[in-house]
Amino acid sequence: MDGNHFVVGECDVALDRALHYGDGLFETIAVINGAPLFWEAHLARLSRGAAILNIPTPSPSLWYDDLQQVLNNVPAQPRLSAKLLLSRGAGWGYDGSGAGPPRRYLWLSQWPERDPHHWEPGVAATICPVVLLTGAPYLGVKSLNRLNQVIARDALASEYAEGVMLDQSGVLREGIMSNLFWVKAGVVYTPDLEDGGIAGIQRGAILKWLRANGVSTMLGRYQAVALQEADEIFFSNSLIGIWPVRHFVERSLPGHDGPIASALLAWCRDMGLGLQP
Amino acid sequence: MDGNHFVVGECDVALDRALHYGDGLFETIAVINGAPLFWEAHLARLSRGAAILNIPTPSPSLWYDDLQQVLNNVPAQPRLSAKLLLSRGAGWGYDGSGAGPPRRYLWLSQWPERDPHHWEPGVAATICPVVLLTGAPYLGVKSLNRLNQVIARDALASEYAEGVMLDQSGVLREGIMSNLFWVKAGVVYTPDLEDGGIAGIQRGAILKWLRANGVSTMLGRYQAVALQEADEIFFSNSLIGIWPVRHFVERSLPGHDGPIASALLAWCRDMGLGLQP
Repeated sequence: MDGNHFVVGECDVALDRALHYGDGLFETIAVINGAPLFWEAHLARLSRGAAILNIPTPSPSLWYDDLQQVLNNVPAQPRLSAKLLLSRGAGWGYDGSGAGPPRRYLWLSQWPERDPHHWEPGVAATICPVVLLTGAPYLGVKSLNRLNQVIARDALASEYAEGVMLDQSGVLREGIMSNLFWVKAGVVYTPDLEDGGIAGIQRGAILKWLRANGVSTMLGRYQAVALQEADEIFFSNSLIGIWPVRHFVERSLPGHDGPIASALLAWCRDMGLGLQP
Repeated sequence: MDGNHFVVGECDVALDRALHYGDGLFETIAVINGAPLFWEAHLARLSRGAAILNIPTPSPSLWYDDLQQVLNNVPAQPRLSAKLLLSRGAGWGYDGSGAGPPRRYLWLSQWPERDPHHWEPGVAATICPVVLLTGAPYLGVKSLNRLNQVIARDALASEYAEGVMLDQSGVLREGIMSNLFWVKAGVVYTPDLEDGGIAGIQRGAILKWLRANGVSTMLGRYQAVALQEADEIFFSNSLIGIWPVRHFVERSLPGHDGPIASALLAWCRDMGLGLQP
């Protein structure tokens, strides 16, 4: 642990295809009081992504052993962040058929500190000028090719905690580092992400929780105008839980006072995400 | 040198943004009898790409010193391949503004052995089923986000040495690991690559050589049908020189016997690329 990170994995990553081509994928997982949140869902998504990239998937139990190994080596903390990275392996050239074996990496990191106002009253957000690349199955994988997001964040003014990304056709997709939801007349909407954009584990958990609590949800393809008419907007990811939106472009929104955001913030708080009591 | 590679650079790449996000770019350079080919052009392209990605560029003389350092540590060889990789540096999260300093890496590798038939009589090629992502300046950078090419090569049957990539609009762009040229009625055509696809250094050298030798060249946006009517087709990159096409989809072509390909093969041979006497 260099103060912030502890890594399990090959030390010699200099010939790894992850470095040279971004030829791999990852998961970021909240570890609350030593227990990884939504572990099975994260590992299942990693397997689905690896299948799309045609990378053999290690057994989830190996990753779990990695995680326990690093957890045993750091002082117990209420919140940590685990990053699992699967690479196709070492190898030169775009042709990955001779590469391998696949390599597992795991980092355990300090919980990222964020401005408390991002949860209460909420964030300022806007439409990102950089388009999200979509249209192929591999673009829906949480791959190591994240320059689209790096460029998007770089193009967004620093006063915005998050930006909404549209695809090449102007369809709403996601936040730069999160999924996007909005509420209109009591119904919660989110883009369907069938051919691009990353369907977050936290997004899936939110949809499940909403349905279990009698809230109607709609997945589909929507234009940006939908956000101009929304009663509430919020972002989600596995570490932030949700960030309600307080200002969107020129509009003020209820932020954490919105009825859906308020209920979700409480649910996230109970599982250890967001502001703690 | 592990037999094939010798690396100069940070050993601890585990926290490098190149590994996590593909947040960097690279050059591949032929080193012939200890001298890098088109060195200034490669370094100039690296600088242009770094500017697009908003990464500060190290002085070319630092890279040159790296190269001399590794050359001094390996037995002299007629042909070697150098790979220069510039990363934004270490850092966590899509926001790269706090990253840094940028890191230089340099690998010196054995010359990649290829089937001699790729030069004489030429390769078999076809249209690649995977689309090339275009439409933004960063997509024209030789960045470390190369999953598009890895997926494209994986989708191409192994009997094809190279595949032609079209963009989302069906416009001809490039080969998976090369640039694309074709000849019709004595004029040499190549895609203009203004908003995606990588304008190769070898491509630039070929265009310059053709013009200097009185051959007309045309850069533009062309549909795949242009290849069906071509008299010759060839691919270029900095290590192969050129590969003439002998079979394209269902058609036979003259391959190395074509007048333009034949002249270019001789020119490349003189600079140390392709089959040697």
